[in-house]
Amino acid sequence: MKRVSLQIILACGAIVWLMSTQASASTEGEAPHGLDPLALLGVAVILVVAKLCGEVFERIGQPAVLGELVAGILMGNLALVGFTAVEPLKTNETISALAEIGVIILLFEVGLESNLGEMLEVGWSSLFVAVAGVIAPFFLGWGVSAYFIPDEARLGHIFIGATLCATSVGITARVLKDLGRLQTRESRIILGAAVIDDVLGLLILAVVAGAIKAAATGAALSLADIAIITGKALAFLFGAVAVGHYVTPHIFRRAGRFESRGVLLALSISFCFLLAWAASKVGLATIVGAFAAGLVLDEVHFETFEEKGKHDLQRLIAPVSTVLVPIFFVLMGLRVDLRYFGQKGLLGFAAMLTLVAIIGKQVCALAVVERGLNRLAVGLGMIPRGEVGLIFAGIGATLLLPNNEGASEPVISAGTFGAVVIMVIVTTLVTPPALKWALSRTKFVKEDESGDAFREIADDATERVSQ
Amino acid sequence: MKRVSLQIILACGAIVWLMSTQASASTEGEAPHGLDPLALLGVAVILVVAKLCGEVFERIGQPAVLGELVAGILMGNLALVGFTAVEPLKTNETISALAEIGVIILLFEVGLESNLGEMLEVGWSSLFVAVAGVIAPFFLGWGVSAYFIPDEARLGHIFIGATLCATSVGITARVLKDLGRLQTRESRIILGAAVIDDVLGLLILAVVAGAIKAAATGAALSLADIAIITGKALAFLFGAVAVGHYVTPHIFRRAGRFESRGVLLALSISFCFLLAWAASKVGLATIVGAFAAGLVLDEVHFETFEEKGKHDLQRLIAPVSTVLVPIFFVLMGLRVDLRYFGQKGLLGFAAMLTLVAIIGKQVCALAVVERGLNRLAVGLGMIPRGEVGLIFAGIGATLLLPNNEGASEPVISAGTFGAVVIMVIVTTLVTPPALKWALSRTKFVKEDESGDAFREIADDATERVSQ
Repeated sequence: MKRVSLQIILACGAIVWLMSTQASASTEGEAPHGLDPLALLGVAVILVVAKLCGEVFERIGQPAVLGELVAGILMGNLALVGFTAVEPLKTNETISALAEIGVIILLFEVGLESNLGEMLEVGWSSLFVAVAGVIAPFFLGWGVSAYFIPDEARLGHIFIGATLCATSVGITARVLKDLGRLQTRESRIILGAAVIDDVLGLLILAVVAGAIKAAATGAALSLADIAIITGKALAFLFGAVAVGHYVTPHIFRRAGRFESRGVLLALSISFCFLLAWAASKVGLATIVGAFAAGLVLDEVHFETFEEKGKHDLQRLIAPVSTVLVPIFFVLMGLRVDLRYFGQKGLLGFAAMLTLVAIIGKQVCALAVVERGLNRLAVGLGMIPRGEVGLIFAGIGATLLLPNNEGASEPVISAGTFGAVVIMVIVTTLVTPPALKWALSRTKFVKEDESGDAFREIADDATERVSQ
Repeated sequence: MKRVSLQIILACGAIVWLMSTQASASTEGEAPHGLDPLALLGVAVILVVAKLCGEVFERIGQPAVLGELVAGILMGNLALVGFTAVEPLKTNETISALAEIGVIILLFEVGLESNLGEMLEVGWSSLFVAVAGVIAPFFLGWGVSAYFIPDEARLGHIFIGATLCATSVGITARVLKDLGRLQTRESRIILGAAVIDDVLGLLILAVVAGAIKAAATGAALSLADIAIITGKALAFLFGAVAVGHYVTPHIFRRAGRFESRGVLLALSISFCFLLAWAASKVGLATIVGAFAAGLVLDEVHFETFEEKGKHDLQRLIAPVSTVLVPIFFVLMGLRVDLRYFGQKGLLGFAAMLTLVAIIGKQVCALAVVERGLNRLAVGLGMIPRGEVGLIFAGIGATLLLPNNEGASEPVISAGTFGAVVIMVIVTTLVTPPALKWALSRTKFVKEDESGDAFREIADDATERVSQ
C-alpha cells in the first residue's frame, strides 16, 4: 500500500504540474482545425488517474469502477481549492464523445454477456424478483423526489424514479464468487433477475425519455402515447433480436472467410453503432440499440472465426473498452459539483434517495416464490446500482424540459445529478459487507446442475466490474 | 471473388438505403447535447466499407490500406451521381477526431516497431540511402509544384516536396517476404533506410510546418529560425527518448504489480497521448510525439507484465488500431474531390508529381556504398509512400497561409490534396510488380547472420500493411 500511495502522490504532482502548464498555455489558441490537443492531455490524465484510483479501490476490496468515479469527483472539485485547470475537461467535446462511445461499447458488452436462452430459463422467481425490484424503487424514488424537490417538473421526479430501477449485478456476483456461493439457487435468482432488470430499466428509460421529449414540444402525454412508446421500444428490441437472429449468422459466416485482420471486431462494432444509431432514430437511447446488438451477436456462433484460431469477440473488444469505459466514469465524477451539497436539503435528499434505493430492493425478498431460501440475501444482493444508474442520470442531464418560466432546463439538474451519484456510490459500497453478513446467518441451497452457465455469467460480470 | 462481389453489392445497397434514410431524417434535429448519432452511423458505414474494400484489394495482391483509400474516394464522390448523403461525414467533428486519434495510434505503433539499436546498427548504406531518398524527392517535388501551381505560396510548394520524402516500408517488406528475400543485404538496407526516413520525414515536417506557422503571423523566416525549429524537433525527439529511457522502465515495472485489468494498455496510451500533446505544445505535430512515445516504450521491457502472462503491448493495441486507423484512411479518401481533376493541368500535375516521386527515390540506388548489390531493387523498394505521405498531406490541409488577397487558405488545397493522394496510390501500386521484376534479374547477396531481427521488423511492417 505504501508504494501505491507514493505513486499516487507522484502522479498527482505530475498531473498538477501538467494541468498548470496547460492552463497557462491554453490562451495561445493553436490548431484552428483538427483535434484539440487539450483532449489528448485530458484523456491521458483521465486514464492514469482512473487506473491508479481503480487499483487502490480494488486493493481495499471495492470495485475499480468506484475508484474511477471517486477519482473524477476529486479531480472535478479541485476548483474548490483554487485549481481550475481541470474545468475545460468537463465540457470538452472530444472527451464527451469518447465517453459516450465508451458507454455504447459497455452496454454492447453487457448485451454480449446476457444470454437470451438463460434469461428464459431462470423461471418465475427471477422474473418476480426483477419486476418487484423495479416497481418499488421506481415509485419510492418518485415520491422522495416530489417531496424534496417539489419545484422541479413531475417528469423530472419520474426520471429520478427510473434511475433507481436497474441493478448492477457485477458487485454482487463478485462477492458471491469470493465466498464460493455462485452455485446456489439464490445466486441464480439474483443473476437472472439482474439481466431482466437491464431490459426493464431500458424500457422504462425509453418511455420516460419519450414522455420528456413529447413534453418539451408542449404536447400532453396520454396513456395511449405511453403505450406507443413502450410498444416501439419492445418492437425495436425484439425486432432487432429477431432480424439479427436470422441475418447476422449469415453475414458473420461470410466475413469469417475474409483474410484481412480485425474483420470480426470491425464488423461487430459497426453492427453495434448501426443499431445504436437506429435506436436514436426511433426515439430511443443509443445504449438500447447497443444492448440489442450485444444480445444478437451473443447468439451468433463465430464458427469460421474460431476455426481460424482467432480470439472470441469479448476478448477482442476488451482492449477497446479498457480505454474508453473509464473515460465515461471519470467524466461522470468530474461533473459532480460538491458545492451543491451546501444547498439546503440536498444532502438530506441524497440520503433519502439512497435509503429508498436500498429499501425498495428489499421488496425483492418478498417476491421469491420458493420456500426455504435466504430471502434476505436476495434482497441485499439486488441493492447495487453501479453503472446503469449513472448512465441514466447522464442521459437525464442531456434531456431538456420547459420550466415554470418557460425556459428549457435539464431534467436532471447539477444538484440532483450529485445526489444520484452519491446514491450509486453508497449502494455499491454497502452491498459487499451486508451480503457477507446475510450469508453467514444461514446455509444456501446448493444446486450443482446447470450451475456452470451461471458461473460463466458471474465471471463475466466480475470481469466487467474489475475493469 | 464472385461471392465477395455479391457481398459488396449487397452491402452498398444497404448503405445507400441507410444513408437515404439518414438524409431524409436529418432535418429532425434531435439530441441537442451529446454525441451526434450521425457519427455512429458514419463510423459504422466507414468500417464496413473499409473492411470490404480492404479484403478485395488483399485478394488481388494489394495492401488493404489502398482498398480503404479507394473506398473513401468512391464514397466521397457519390455526390457526382446525385447522392449527397455522404457529404456530412466529411466535416463531422467526431469522425475527424477519431481519425486523428487513429493516426496518433498508428504512429505510436510505427514507433513501437522501430528499434533504436537496430537503427544504429544498419550502417552507412542505410543512412546514405535514406538521406538521398529524402533530398532528391524533396527538391523534385518542390520544383514540380512551383511549375504547375505557380500561384500558390512558395511554402506550399515546399510542403508538397516534404510529402514526397517518407518511405512506407510495409508494402516493400511484404513483397520481399513473399519472395523469400528478407534475409538479403538489400532488404536490410531498404528496411533500415525506411526507419531512418520516418525520422527524417518527421523532422522536415516539423521545420516546414514551423515555417508556415511563422509565415501565417506575417514574420519572415530566417535561416536561424529554421535552425531553431530543427533543434527543437531534434531536442524533443532525443529528449523524450532519453528521459523515457530512464523513467518509463521504472514506472512500468511498478504498474506491472497492479492487479486491475488493462493497466499496461491504458498507461501506454496515456503516455502516447501525453507526448503527442507535449509535441503540439512545443509547436511540433502530434504524431511526432506519438512516434517518440513508441520509440521509448519499445525500449522498455515489460518484464513484470510478461511474467503474469499478459499480452505484449503491440498485440494489446492492435484491436484499438484496427477500429481507429481505417477511419483515417477512408476519411482521407472521402476528402478527395474528383471534380478538381476536371481543372486544367491538375491531372498533369498529379502525373508529374507521381513521376518525380518514383524517379526521386531512384537516387537511392546510387547511394548504396557496397559493391555487387542489386542497386535497382533498392531504388524500387523505396518507392511506396503509403500512409506517411497521406498523413503529411492531411496536416497540410489544416495549416493556413495568407494568400495574395490577404485571406487565409490551406497550404494543401483540395485539388493539390487529390494530386498527392493519386501519387500515394500509384507509387504503392507500381512497387510490387517493379520489385519482382528487378529481383528476377539477379541473385541477392544472402546474409544469414543477424537476419532474424530484420525478419521481425519486416513481419511487423507486413502486419501493419494488412490491417
